[in-house]
Amino acid sequence: MTTQNIYDDPEFFAGYSRLARSVEGLAGAPEWPALQALLPDLPGLRVVDLGCGFGWFCRWAREQGAAQVLGLDVSERMLARAKASTADAAITYERVDLERLDLPEARFDLAYSSLVLHYIADAARLLAQVHRALVPGGRLVFSTEHPIYTAPTRPGWSSDAEGRKTWPVDRYLVEGPRRTKWLGKGVVKHHRTIGTTLNLLIRSGFTIRHVEEFCPTAEQIAANPALAEERERPMFLLVAAQR
Amino acid sequence: MTTQNIYDDPEFFAGYSRLARSVEGLAGAPEWPALQALLPDLPGLRVVDLGCGFGWFCRWAREQGAAQVLGLDVSERMLARAKASTADAAITYERVDLERLDLPEARFDLAYSSLVLHYIADAARLLAQVHRALVPGGRLVFSTEHPIYTAPTRPGWSSDAEGRKTWPVDRYLVEGPRRTKWLGKGVVKHHRTIGTTLNLLIRSGFTIRHVEEFCPTAEQIAANPALAEERERPMFLLVAAQR
Repeated sequence: MTTQNIYDDPEFFAGYSRLARSVEGLAGAPEWPALQALLPDLPGLRVVDLGCGFGWFCRWAREQGAAQVLGLDVSERMLARAKASTADAAITYERVDLERLDLPEARFDLAYSSLVLHYIADAARLLAQVHRALVPGGRLVFSTEHPIYTAPTRPGWSSDAEGRKTWPVDRYLVEGPRRTKWLGKGVVKHHRTIGTTLNLLIRSGFTIRHVEEFCPTAEQIAANPALAEERERPMFLLVAAQR
Repeated sequence: MTTQNIYDDPEFFAGYSRLARSVEGLAGAPEWPALQALLPDLPGLRVVDLGCGFGWFCRWAREQGAAQVLGLDVSERMLARAKASTADAAITYERVDLERLDLPEARFDLAYSSLVLHYIADAARLLAQVHRALVPGGRLVFSTEHPIYTAPTRPGWSSDAEGRKTWPVDRYLVEGPRRTKWLGKGVVKHHRTIGTTLNLLIRSGFTIRHVEEFCPTAEQIAANPALAEERERPMFLLVAAQR
């Protein structure tokens, strides 16, 4: 199994590069404050970022005092930009297919991953690898697309008879690949239930510390009213776990 | 806060008494085999059943070898039938409002609860009580209505433009009471996300052991084709946790 590498498609890459989270970095991602709240104190930690993209989190982690940061991604284009964005010798970037990840044992204090797990077909293998790569007591903090978001045959908003905005769900319990369009390109996501994700963590040896279905705060909605629809159905699942 | 006691409404009680799970007991509940799989071995255990209804689980637990079983429910009618269904001195029934539960400390090895938590407004208080009432290492196994099922303003099936059966979701992240109709009566359920339920458990001191969004097996669907729709959206959330 090889991860699709849509991020190296020139057209997709151009579209992705224009998203708020690509231009503004962490501050452009509405779920970032909620994910940040799940992180341990960073000073002195050895950190691995699974699917580091442009390296925004890697640079931020170093600013917070992380001792070493390893950023992994499958996209050459994203890694090229990540490498060009820092001269910090404590940040290392490596091109890696996360489906074939092979990390050294007990090497990291924190594993972080933002919106990558839903691209992974063999999540059991990846999570077992991450568990092995963490020191005892080490943390895994990640976000992934919420299964309510990935489940439907045709993901999207609808209106009910009274004009109410709804998100019609089907196939929630039919796990497996979903082919959808994003930024004009076909993307394969791997739909799995919350139960499956959490049970994979538990069976890998993790203790679940926090599970959050992202909801923007009232302040975020006041600043950006388009976020109000995120209260109707969750787009992101945030999880903190500990080895 | 006092729990509503719709089960003592004569009309509702009559309707509820005709459901498969009331007539056939545990075998009439499609989620029972999945919930049963989460239970520890029962011989010798002291068990409390939160919301015991007609006492099916209490009697079953004794048949499996549980040492003592305490069944708690707010409904006099259900308790009357539960009491009339057994002469076993090791089964005790008590009328209790679970919003005001006050159990002795470290008294039980297993707490069980089937489809009750969504009626509870103050789940934090109840789960803290249950944690306190379990011995260290004791288990909590429960089912509750899934938040995809409780969230919508108008819970029910719909059809998309292609005639596909969907379950339109809205208000998923707006937690709180939902007034719906069931068996012809208004029922108040308390909608909370999976994240909230799990975080309440974690903050009470529980370790999450298993999380399952119930899906009928292929064999169950073959025997009862009406269950096929349960693959489209989950109705029940099953959780195992340990003190």
